[in-house]
Amino acid sequence: MKRISSRPENVHQATLLRLLRDGARSRAEVDDVVALSRAKINSELDRLIAMDLVEPAGLAASRGGRRSRMVRLSPQLRFAAIDIGATSVDVAVTDGELGILGHVAEPCDVRDGPAAVLDRALTLLGKLQDQGLFTTLHGTGVGVPGPVSFREGVPVAPPIMPGWDRYPVRETISQELGCPAVVDNDVNLMAVGELHAGLARQVEDFLLVKIGTGIGCGIVVGGQIYRGVSGSAGDIGHIRVADQGPTCTCGNIGCLEACFGGAALAAEAVRIAPRSPYLAERLAAAGKLTAQDVAAAASLGDGAAVGLVRDGGRQVGQVLASLVSFFNPGLVIIAGGVSRIGHVLLAEIRSVVYRRSLPLATGNLPIVLSELGDTAGVIGGARLVSDHVFSAS
Amino acid sequence: MKRISSRPENVHQATLLRLLRDGARSRAEVDDVVALSRAKINSELDRLIAMDLVEPAGLAASRGGRRSRMVRLSPQLRFAAIDIGATSVDVAVTDGELGILGHVAEPCDVRDGPAAVLDRALTLLGKLQDQGLFTTLHGTGVGVPGPVSFREGVPVAPPIMPGWDRYPVRETISQELGCPAVVDNDVNLMAVGELHAGLARQVEDFLLVKIGTGIGCGIVVGGQIYRGVSGSAGDIGHIRVADQGPTCTCGNIGCLEACFGGAALAAEAVRIAPRSPYLAERLAAAGKLTAQDVAAAASLGDGAAVGLVRDGGRQVGQVLASLVSFFNPGLVIIAGGVSRIGHVLLAEIRSVVYRRSLPLATGNLPIVLSELGDTAGVIGGARLVSDHVFSAS
Repeated sequence: MKRISSRPENVHQATLLRLLRDGARSRAEVDDVVALSRAKINSELDRLIAMDLVEPAGLAASRGGRRSRMVRLSPQLRFAAIDIGATSVDVAVTDGELGILGHVAEPCDVRDGPAAVLDRALTLLGKLQDQGLFTTLHGTGVGVPGPVSFREGVPVAPPIMPGWDRYPVRETISQELGCPAVVDNDVNLMAVGELHAGLARQVEDFLLVKIGTGIGCGIVVGGQIYRGVSGSAGDIGHIRVADQGPTCTCGNIGCLEACFGGAALAAEAVRIAPRSPYLAERLAAAGKLTAQDVAAAASLGDGAAVGLVRDGGRQVGQVLASLVSFFNPGLVIIAGGVSRIGHVLLAEIRSVVYRRSLPLATGNLPIVLSELGDTAGVIGGARLVSDHVFSAS
Repeated sequence: MKRISSRPENVHQATLLRLLRDGARSRAEVDDVVALSRAKINSELDRLIAMDLVEPAGLAASRGGRRSRMVRLSPQLRFAAIDIGATSVDVAVTDGELGILGHVAEPCDVRDGPAAVLDRALTLLGKLQDQGLFTTLHGTGVGVPGPVSFREGVPVAPPIMPGWDRYPVRETISQELGCPAVVDNDVNLMAVGELHAGLARQVEDFLLVKIGTGIGCGIVVGGQIYRGVSGSAGDIGHIRVADQGPTCTCGNIGCLEACFGGAALAAEAVRIAPRSPYLAERLAAAGKLTAQDVAAAASLGDGAAVGLVRDGGRQVGQVLASLVSFFNPGLVIIAGGVSRIGHVLLAEIRSVVYRRSLPLATGNLPIVLSELGDTAGVIGGARLVSDHVFSAS
């Protein structure tokens, strides 16, 4: 396999590569959407073909005159994504159009520290390489469950990631794999995934709320992730929702995450088990309960579990109602492990937001469950690094 | 006076005009900051001089070699701003560099409807014209106390502005004055004013919280106002801060605005007057109390009034703590009539935000009182319309 040139030579080539990321196009179609002369488009496309970044793809259907020639990204292009969660790691390889060619995941405790966790991720990626999915990578996008300095490619003061503070994640991955890398917060990765392949494809300004072990929010403004001045934007897990409640890992009480994160939900499940035959049975069998057990109980109509979900949905809804009034998004996507509880949870969140937010902000506001599941993060990681690779160097 | 050409002819001229809005520069200094060749800069500047938009301004101090020629915006350029509040209207005229040449204000009830209020504003502007401050206007920026469709130039479902819904404010002003106009929410105008001439000059991402008759927030992302999909972004007055409380104009209870807006504060002042000698005396003398009376009482150390301010500051702080965690801004500016209560209020807001928000989000976060006072809105209005006029047509 030929070694692929690493980057476009100018801003026009970068524009063309980003366009083709969304699929093959005829030269006539490219001309319709790119503000360059037809001659300039053709010469830059020919140059990209010479660089092995683009290849001809036959003739398009006729639009009346001569049939236009199709072009597409080189099928040799490969991006990787490493999505590190609090308790799992997902690794995937995509083609240039960000279609997933292979995806593996396994449980992994982020508290094991960067050396162990990144080693684990690289081993998983090696398995995908052994399957023949790639020989050379064009770029790798990495997500971690905490705040990140995107510019520096390092986690910054991440509360649940001991040993990761300012660890050179981007540099490590880039050197190990011999390709450009970007690092971002895992929730931002999911939001970018929704932007590329999920429910947010046509939406400029939206929020993605992840309810998993932690609770966080991805903020998209004008089709771009908004990260805030310290990289901590969207960290909504520590917004206060109750005047009393368990002490949060952050030291405050009444935080959203301490009331309805995955860990909080598991603890609450144990507390209500005496009133729930299903949970009592699961607890006796497994010795512990998880958020998934609550989801299963609620889906069976277990009254105590449904009550727990409704209480949590109301608290998420309270926070979201404020954020919707503040941010006036075009879409809210609910994602993450706990969101798999599904429509009981969604109904409660919607009910609070539609009642409490400004009517003008909710008039045309869909609040929906993600349809991407575990792939949102890795698609987002591949997309983020492709943004970087498909930019003028 | 010569008729000034209305708009730059291309994007390079637009860039140069926006740069000179911040003050006179030598051609060498322009070359330092604009990504164009020296020859291109000089030819475009010469063209702008021929169009009477720019004029020569002598020689710069030597930087070692030949002294560079200074250029500045034509001193004939004039922008107007009309800042319509709930209970007042401010009108000002600026030069091209947005220095205020004249500023008049008077009480005015926005509920009198658009025809009466805009007529009042145009009369005030006429007075400034009679003073010889302008003959021709280059553009007019208008602010109104409610949500606005910036693209269409009309208020959209504004809750406290009966008769204004979708009234063609931009078209009316543009036709009456014979110049381009833009219309935005009054809090957005203030945020733009801070960006141009206030404490946010070097800040890309910040929040401006206005506490006046109503409570609202201007959101700046990357140096640009973020308006949301319906133009209602920043409408934080109806975020819930209390489980009980007075019914708000929006129909809900416990809204921030219903607890600590100017009207709420005046009503609370009457309630606590029996415990406050100062307020009791003012009430007996005037037959009513205002937010300003509470400010005066608090500044005299009146215990009941200080308690009221602290309670309100805590509620504003609660909302702001959530927004700071969510948005991770580089600066928070507190402005508006009620903010003139000053440092007791500021201290309470700071205390809650610094305690409740994420340490990473507050580590380098200044929370400050505006220093622009009543001029923020009109400077912002002039700046917004100059952005429009100084763009390639």
